[in-house]
Amino acid sequence: MAQNKVAGPEIERLIQLLAKLPGLGPRSARRAALHLIKKKDQLLAPLSEAMGVAVEKIGICSSCGTVDTTDPCAICSDPKRDSSVLVVVEDVADLWALERASATNAIYHVLGGTLSPLDGVGPEDLNIAKLIERCEGGEIQEVILAINATVEGQTTAHFVMDQLAPLNVNVTKLAHGVPVGGELDYLDEGTLTQALKGRTRF
Amino acid sequence: MAQNKVAGPEIERLIQLLAKLPGLGPRSARRAALHLIKKKDQLLAPLSEAMGVAVEKIGICSSCGTVDTTDPCAICSDPKRDSSVLVVVEDVADLWALERASATNAIYHVLGGTLSPLDGVGPEDLNIAKLIERCEGGEIQEVILAINATVEGQTTAHFVMDQLAPLNVNVTKLAHGVPVGGELDYLDEGTLTQALKGRTRF
Repeated sequence: MAQNKVAGPEIERLIQLLAKLPGLGPRSARRAALHLIKKKDQLLAPLSEAMGVAVEKIGICSSCGTVDTTDPCAICSDPKRDSSVLVVVEDVADLWALERASATNAIYHVLGGTLSPLDGVGPEDLNIAKLIERCEGGEIQEVILAINATVEGQTTAHFVMDQLAPLNVNVTKLAHGVPVGGELDYLDEGTLTQALKGRTRF
Repeated sequence: MAQNKVAGPEIERLIQLLAKLPGLGPRSARRAALHLIKKKDQLLAPLSEAMGVAVEKIGICSSCGTVDTTDPCAICSDPKRDSSVLVVVEDVADLWALERASATNAIYHVLGGTLSPLDGVGPEDLNIAKLIERCEGGEIQEVILAINATVEGQTTAHFVMDQLAPLNVNVTKLAHGVPVGGELDYLDEGTLTQALKGRTRF
């Protein structure tokens, strides 16, 4: 059923573009558009400006592949970071998650996805060549593969490990186990098996 | 726990502003920001521009109170509309809902909220004076109160009806009853009682 246009083309276009954001559907995009229009000065104008600034300034860090307003990014150019340890992640979102947790003081490398032959994603489509190049520099002692524990993620991790094998770097991976706050009863068998295998002294 | 900044101040500001949209929390705002940044040319730039246009052009219709890029709005200035019937709604979202349903060819009047003495919302805070003025013009024959079936909405509807009583207009309200596609078993007693009372010949 074709939907009636509820307002002028400018408002319709705003709704259509908002509906493309993850987490917003057509209905919530309308609500969001109306909210923005009602708070024109407090929200719509600043958001429009912030997006304009983002369009202008944000780019990809030529070293690690994350997004930032400077190149190299704030993390790569931070002298307080331990640049002998490199954490390899699939996506910028994973980098952000590790940074929010303040989990490491290391530097990062963003692959930009996982290998997926069925979708036509090969090694040349990921940021792997640059990773090898960085590791050949000699400064990096350890590469931590912080890649998602999915089938595609683990396939990619194995591929990356094979590529790094000839180089003089230690390759490690994240521990599998019981999530903090998790209950054994709700965990899958794979996780429980790995948690038992990886047990540590109390 | 204070959250680590994950990126430069421009990205943080974008995330903070996106988090103010209804339907997006801090986590989904981050996802949305990353999605926008990754689709800079296809989504971020057009959305920034659409918002800029909205800031510049969108205003309140001085006749009915809806939001549009023209004043009077597209509906008020449409000669094909039946300007003898006026549908009174609480909010622009309600007007949009009726328009999407193509439920009526009448013109509208947006109150901009409901009476709420506890929140300090009195008749002078709503778009009621303008409604009376429009009805005094003589052209309007019927006023349909399409106000939400909530306590505040019905209080407001009664107030508006009292204001319109001295004027020569028919005041009607929406039918209560079983929603199309609804099952009796799931309906509340109030709705069932109203549906029985308002029964029509089959």
